[in-house]
Amino acid sequence: MAQLTEIDYLIAPDPDRAGLTRAVTGVDHDGQITETAVVEERPLTIFLNRREIVTAMTIGDYPDLLALGFLRNQGMLQDDEQVTGVDFDEELETVVVRTATETDYEDKLNRKTRTSGCAVGTVFGDMMEGLAGLTLPELQVRTSDLYALSAKINRTPSLYLQAGAIHGTVLCQGDHPLVYMEDVGRHNAVDKVAGWMFKTGTSGADKVLYTTGRLTSEMVIKCALMGIPALVSRSGFTAWGVEIAQQVGLTLVGRMKGRRFVCLAGAERLIRDANPAQVADEPAKSARKGARG
Amino acid sequence: MAQLTEIDYLIAPDPDRAGLTRAVTGVDHDGQITETAVVEERPLTIFLNRREIVTAMTIGDYPDLLALGFLRNQGMLQDDEQVTGVDFDEELETVVVRTATETDYEDKLNRKTRTSGCAVGTVFGDMMEGLAGLTLPELQVRTSDLYALSAKINRTPSLYLQAGAIHGTVLCQGDHPLVYMEDVGRHNAVDKVAGWMFKTGTSGADKVLYTTGRLTSEMVIKCALMGIPALVSRSGFTAWGVEIAQQVGLTLVGRMKGRRFVCLAGAERLIRDANPAQVADEPAKSARKGARG
Repeated sequence: MAQLTEIDYLIAPDPDRAGLTRAVTGVDHDGQITETAVVEERPLTIFLNRREIVTAMTIGDYPDLLALGFLRNQGMLQDDEQVTGVDFDEELETVVVRTATETDYEDKLNRKTRTSGCAVGTVFGDMMEGLAGLTLPELQVRTSDLYALSAKINRTPSLYLQAGAIHGTVLCQGDHPLVYMEDVGRHNAVDKVAGWMFKTGTSGADKVLYTTGRLTSEMVIKCALMGIPALVSRSGFTAWGVEIAQQVGLTLVGRMKGRRFVCLAGAERLIRDANPAQVADEPAKSARKGARG
Repeated sequence: MAQLTEIDYLIAPDPDRAGLTRAVTGVDHDGQITETAVVEERPLTIFLNRREIVTAMTIGDYPDLLALGFLRNQGMLQDDEQVTGVDFDEELETVVVRTATETDYEDKLNRKTRTSGCAVGTVFGDMMEGLAGLTLPELQVRTSDLYALSAKINRTPSLYLQAGAIHGTVLCQGDHPLVYMEDVGRHNAVDKVAGWMFKTGTSGADKVLYTTGRLTSEMVIKCALMGIPALVSRSGFTAWGVEIAQQVGLTLVGRMKGRRFVCLAGAERLIRDANPAQVADEPAKSARKGARG
């Protein structure tokens, strides 16, 4: 991690980037004309070679990473897959991922699962199969790192702080947030992180994934399939998400706000090197919502 | 509405109902063993006649209403459709909706859209087509009713207040919350309301829909397709959601918390009969999160 000591984000949110938000004129509770910044939401149709796979609603940044990550997390792209090109057409709102060899996704498309987490087209059966025999590397997680990450991420200028109504997912190492993705769908944010890991060949073994979303079965499964042994959220849990985390040896920390958190899986891998009493509460202004995910 | 003056909920959350939450033992920030109530999340596979349509992740209450509402909101069930049976099998985790005549959903299944709102299998194209030429009835909305609804709904015992990590949608009339559905996926909650409306033949024309989720394009489209002319949320907006609301004449109120709200569509239909200065702030305890939807 030496090369990281001076680095924080490799990719951080760019809330001022043109095209991600729009100012809409409205009327507030006092009847006053008001301008509200709202996030954009546009369709992006993902193709794998000649086949249309899905249309995602996204804020539109990193279409290439979203496509790669979505296909990777759906099991339509294997890690050893040779990607020969990723072509984004802004006008057509399409992104085409080209591989050296055709993949076997057709039959997968016949099984669809609607999860609790914005995952149209998720092939849940395959995702579960992908977990068979999977055990995540034993990563010790310092609570001091979790507190540091939480504080850094919540104070990072973001679309959320500027416009709200958006989810964030952050790939972290130690106390360093590395890649912070946001999107209207929290699974888009996770998939963009997965796309970055796939594109850069980055291992999840020594990483922690932070999400603003809830710790549902699908979020836990995606984290496990990305090879990341620890998942942290300010939001709550579902029972199945907890069960799966316990099965695959994933450390699951939720409801993390200020000094408080609850660990419902892998608590034995936590290194409690921080004194919660010395952790500041979140300043109201930067305090996030999102317990609903 | 005479018959409603004495009624509040026709269907209210039942947070103590067995099987909706589970107590999970974990460890908190102080290293103390703690019991956390988490919501259940179980698969429900929806069939239309002999065809498997989708598997939803749901808390598992009202499988019949979820199935009817999902199919209705996907345009796979028309209002005049004759439903001959809805059979739920708890062991197989399936629900079969039977109609007198076969429907033309097959081709629809070939077009899939991944929205920002948990809508696997959503046929976005069709939903948009469904909006063509649609204009919602002009409903005047009293701000006094909105404040009253907000206060009632936030104080109603719910799975959210008990376990968090869940979304709520409430069908309202005047200042009466009528049907309050919760689910791990906010679109399940909306679909269960749609299923109730379909089953009871209830019109949306004089109703207001309250959701804890964000006002995304899909949420606005579903509300419009349900014939409900006003949509209210504590959460934020997306730009496309606002555009669609303006096109179909839907009154769109967001970021409603305590005395504050923003109206980004149909503000001319608001009757400002309440003095915001006299509206109490939300008590911290019952204050909901969820600006991320």
